[in-house]
Amino acid sequence: MLRVPYNELYKALKKAMERLGMAEERAALCARLFAENTRDGVYTHGLNRFPRFAATVGNGSVDVHAEAARTAGVGSLERWDGRRGVGNLNAYAAMHRAMELAKQFGTGGVALANTNHWMRGGTYGWLAAEAGLFAMCWSNTLANMPAWGATTPAVGNNPLVIAVPRPGAAGGHVVLDMAMSQFSYGAIAAYSKRRELLPVDGGFDSAGNLTRDAAAIEASQRALPIGYWKGSGLSLVLDMLAAMLSGGLATHQLSPDPLRESGQSQIFLAIDPCAVAGTQELGQIAEGILASFHEATPADPDKPIRYPGEETLRLREENMRLGIPVDPEIWGQIDN
Amino acid sequence: MLRVPYNELYKALKKAMERLGMAEERAALCARLFAENTRDGVYTHGLNRFPRFAATVGNGSVDVHAEAARTAGVGSLERWDGRRGVGNLNAYAAMHRAMELAKQFGTGGVALANTNHWMRGGTYGWLAAEAGLFAMCWSNTLANMPAWGATTPAVGNNPLVIAVPRPGAAGGHVVLDMAMSQFSYGAIAAYSKRRELLPVDGGFDSAGNLTRDAAAIEASQRALPIGYWKGSGLSLVLDMLAAMLSGGLATHQLSPDPLRESGQSQIFLAIDPCAVAGTQELGQIAEGILASFHEATPADPDKPIRYPGEETLRLREENMRLGIPVDPEIWGQIDN
Repeated sequence: MLRVPYNELYKALKKAMERLGMAEERAALCARLFAENTRDGVYTHGLNRFPRFAATVGNGSVDVHAEAARTAGVGSLERWDGRRGVGNLNAYAAMHRAMELAKQFGTGGVALANTNHWMRGGTYGWLAAEAGLFAMCWSNTLANMPAWGATTPAVGNNPLVIAVPRPGAAGGHVVLDMAMSQFSYGAIAAYSKRRELLPVDGGFDSAGNLTRDAAAIEASQRALPIGYWKGSGLSLVLDMLAAMLSGGLATHQLSPDPLRESGQSQIFLAIDPCAVAGTQELGQIAEGILASFHEATPADPDKPIRYPGEETLRLREENMRLGIPVDPEIWGQIDN
Repeated sequence: MLRVPYNELYKALKKAMERLGMAEERAALCARLFAENTRDGVYTHGLNRFPRFAATVGNGSVDVHAEAARTAGVGSLERWDGRRGVGNLNAYAAMHRAMELAKQFGTGGVALANTNHWMRGGTYGWLAAEAGLFAMCWSNTLANMPAWGATTPAVGNNPLVIAVPRPGAAGGHVVLDMAMSQFSYGAIAAYSKRRELLPVDGGFDSAGNLTRDAAAIEASQRALPIGYWKGSGLSLVLDMLAAMLSGGLATHQLSPDPLRESGQSQIFLAIDPCAVAGTQELGQIAEGILASFHEATPADPDKPIRYPGEETLRLREENMRLGIPVDPEIWGQIDN
């Protein structure tokens, strides 16, 4: 594995963003968000995603010059238009605005239409938690799962992020970042390539039986929603909230071609706890919950129970110390 | 099956609530909420739940005289103390207040501490949707599931409700009401009694294998979170938000005895879309999504694809027309 210093990765990504036509300041933020995803171990949505991101700029799905703007809103709720701009820049601006609204009102919400893939959803959860705020955000996606009881795709895997700040825990926030599918098609493809069974059922085979056989799910294109009927329903309501509040596209209106999936709708909600609680009380409650959570008996003594995001700080520290792992081929494409 | 007119059920429940010591106006609302749950087909949390509710009043877990009150808050976010009062009355007041805040600010949130079981969570989602508002609410519960990777209970099945209003659809709102466990212990017990396999894996047997055998799950007490590790993480963050924002108890602090489970923490969020959208636009987007959802090909031609809450209106109409189905034994206990 090739490892490079964080700053080299960031600088190379910034140059690459500028080559795509992005203005310098926007290129800097976009590159930082990509680089931080790789730094935090979310390799699928950092550097490794750059070639696909560049392709969506190339085919016109993403407009690198477009900036998100507020189109409506009263008080703590606003509607923004992402103008088919860069997904992570739009989402960053929207969460930032939701946080401002929460600081002003206690709760704040931004509904963002006409945006593009936000890459790692957790980015926007960490942003809020680092500022001491709670956050929930989600995106709709193209239809990539059958609803429960159906054989044809009707719902998206709509990632949902929930962030809980831990005051006084040195940045170890709790950030859940989960898609509505049990496994991403990327993960299913990786298992299929290794001819390995999924750890639990991940979809249906072509005969309609639940299966751990990744290749069979690739063939049927029937990935499984989390919790069967439950994740199917959750995915639907998240799509409805996103499209209705933003006035943007719903899952059924997004292109089924992943390279032309553009115009997603997203919701960003932030809550500033300082309206109701002090940081000492918040920290005590959070640490009590996590201490009790960690006391549970693990099924496998070598696998301690982990909360969502628990591995992030460790991986971040390790990658900053040893260098950020990069795919040599993709690194070779952008490092010049 | 015995069926009784809705009004008879409501009147008998109201008298029963008064016999428990509730003041008349509060008894009327509490009885209506119980009766509506049965009317809407949620039999487990209507009349059938009354004996257990009465037991929690009897053992002092529920104080029928206590009224929830605001203890802190600025702008759109408030903290309320439920004072160990009646769970559905507290939750009704908290959602009602969140809706007022949303109407004033666009978004609104109430964090409720020291409350009791809210019975059917969907009640508070329907309340918001009928007023044209979006809502999300959830409750923590006693620890009744192992976290993912653990063998001992560490997380609750924390029900989550998300409500989407459908303007112009004659009350056919979309209301998701789901617990974080794949099956409730009530459902598992029913399958076990009938010696029937669960439709999908619902937990672990005592050897640690995933199983559809309900009796084995009753024996191991290892029910399965939805989506395995995903529902486990979601349950944890919902508990953290509820306890931290309300200043109340977390799952690990609630009595493991269901009859003494008291002091839950709950969150009620409401969004008033009129800050950003008109009802015509909202209706068009919602109907477009549901029409496309219904067009999916069902795996079984006799089982059309349904959205969350789709059966509610049909059951409600049927039960109002034919009479509300009641358990003769429980009905006999309260009808006097």
